[in-house]
Amino acid sequence: MNLLEALQSRIDQKTKPPGSLGKLEEIAIQAGLIQKTLYPTVEKPAILLFAGDHGIAATGLVNPFPQAVTAQMVLNFVQEGAAINVLCRQNHILLQVADAGVNTDFDPALPILHRKIAKGTRNYLHEKAMDHFQVQKAFETGAELVHQLQDEGCNTMGFGEMGIGNSSAAALIMHQLCSIPLEDCIGMGTGHNSEGYRQKVATLKQVAQFHQLGGSEIPAIELLCRVGGFEIAMITGAFLEGFKRNRMLVVDGFIATAALLCAHQINPAILSHCFFAHTSGEKGHAVMLRFLKADPILDFQMRLGEGTGAALAIPLIKSAVAVMSEMASFESAGIPK
Amino acid sequence: MNLLEALQSRIDQKTKPPGSLGKLEEIAIQAGLIQKTLYPTVEKPAILLFAGDHGIAATGLVNPFPQAVTAQMVLNFVQEGAAINVLCRQNHILLQVADAGVNTDFDPALPILHRKIAKGTRNYLHEKAMDHFQVQKAFETGAELVHQLQDEGCNTMGFGEMGIGNSSAAALIMHQLCSIPLEDCIGMGTGHNSEGYRQKVATLKQVAQFHQLGGSEIPAIELLCRVGGFEIAMITGAFLEGFKRNRMLVVDGFIATAALLCAHQINPAILSHCFFAHTSGEKGHAVMLRFLKADPILDFQMRLGEGTGAALAIPLIKSAVAVMSEMASFESAGIPK
Repeated sequence: MNLLEALQSRIDQKTKPPGSLGKLEEIAIQAGLIQKTLYPTVEKPAILLFAGDHGIAATGLVNPFPQAVTAQMVLNFVQEGAAINVLCRQNHILLQVADAGVNTDFDPALPILHRKIAKGTRNYLHEKAMDHFQVQKAFETGAELVHQLQDEGCNTMGFGEMGIGNSSAAALIMHQLCSIPLEDCIGMGTGHNSEGYRQKVATLKQVAQFHQLGGSEIPAIELLCRVGGFEIAMITGAFLEGFKRNRMLVVDGFIATAALLCAHQINPAILSHCFFAHTSGEKGHAVMLRFLKADPILDFQMRLGEGTGAALAIPLIKSAVAVMSEMASFESAGIPK
Repeated sequence: MNLLEALQSRIDQKTKPPGSLGKLEEIAIQAGLIQKTLYPTVEKPAILLFAGDHGIAATGLVNPFPQAVTAQMVLNFVQEGAAINVLCRQNHILLQVADAGVNTDFDPALPILHRKIAKGTRNYLHEKAMDHFQVQKAFETGAELVHQLQDEGCNTMGFGEMGIGNSSAAALIMHQLCSIPLEDCIGMGTGHNSEGYRQKVATLKQVAQFHQLGGSEIPAIELLCRVGGFEIAMITGAFLEGFKRNRMLVVDGFIATAALLCAHQINPAILSHCFFAHTSGEKGHAVMLRFLKADPILDFQMRLGEGTGAALAIPLIKSAVAVMSEMASFESAGIPK
């Protein structure tokens, strides 16, 4: 009997009709396969939240909120007032905030992971957003932080992001990696009206043309150079390292999934370790998820980012794993099967 | 400004784009409306699990598991080995198990609520399952237990059930109250094969004909007399009392929703207090939910009952309420809106 069969058999011995816990059973089995055990656990779940600024956002062409909001929100995370703080507190999840490249000088005493690569990317309307060295550094930083979490005993991690303008980068990445027409990749972001939306589409069409997206294959690292963001590249690196270190990876919304698309191009095997937290309300996300053949846990039409979807999904993953480890079997309960 | 507008305005002041927490915002607002406050809470959430036997189940015509499993599962609940025990423990939910009418004599020392009305209903293939007095008593018992939970400080409650054969009672109730063809109301239950399913359909068609279901209106109490179960009637009573006492009501799967259909016929206003935990994998449930214009929280294709869907939804309701009460506003965070 291989491990999958052994896990299936174990869950079928539980005091319930086979399959009657639906998705919860699938999650429990996936957890067992990742951890290579009949007794999977969720240990010290954590969310790493990466913040970074985007050169394009300084123009206001793609974003309804000013670029300065990225830094303001980082301070809000520090003061524990944001949605992700509330959800992590409520659900007993460790939250760590990393400055991947916010366009401000933070007080070094602030309790954030100071990993700034630069004060925002360059404006990809006219040049590449990053150079290869920066992408490489972002990958290494993502990996380093995953490593650190693992050392602290965390085996389940989600990655969140904050960056004004980053739904544009995600749409461009999706356009290239999923071969989906650009318009179908661009959503309202977190707060557009229809005029702002039209301007976003027109601007991103220019960007796609300038960087020759939507045609032949571009390696993920080069794609991130052209239109990525520091926070997106760090998440890509975190995903790759989390897979290598056999962690359970909780995939949040549109931007985090764009980072996963990059990681997936580099190593398609990564999907075996991914739990897709939710289908977001951002238009392209459902299409991305179909591309990845993902079956997300929640559909709350959320479109905030920060890792908020992952924070809601983690308690459900914990419940699934608890079913596998704590439920009685027909034999132990003395019920004839 | 009325309360709804005030709640909407309060959540729109939070440090996030308006509406970006999707379903979580809807849940928070509904909680505020129920509790008539800008500061809703989830206090001492609980699940009442009602167990009862069905006369029809002794025939084996509609159920793949023998009737004795109802009692065995109650003992499993007491030993904390069932799925609902695991999920309640994991999610910090109080679980109380009530014997509504199981066909056995339980040791009075067992930590269950001993409220047995009779040792199972009568076989509705040939006679009414209950008399009016029994339904009335079941309503009163459900109300009494809700009252007791409220006295202990619980403001959020789900109702679960265990009863071999009770998906048949639920299908018959749905057929009558939703005016849906009987075949579309009958699912695989928790463990049928296709031959068992055909026999279940044929048997329930006889029952529907015998009790003149599917035609003119039948009051819920009379309907429960004809084809109900003690556990279903107690849940109906619990729903009605929970609404009267302004509790937040978490609606589980197919059988609990059938009980809600009965409560809804008696008092349609009850829906304002209902949080629909999930769409179950039992065929008719999605149709029931559409009939009630419900927008369920989860879709895990679970079909176990016991209140397991409610147990998974309660942490999400807690998260929604925490967003409303704990998140910073733009003003408090010093971010220009």
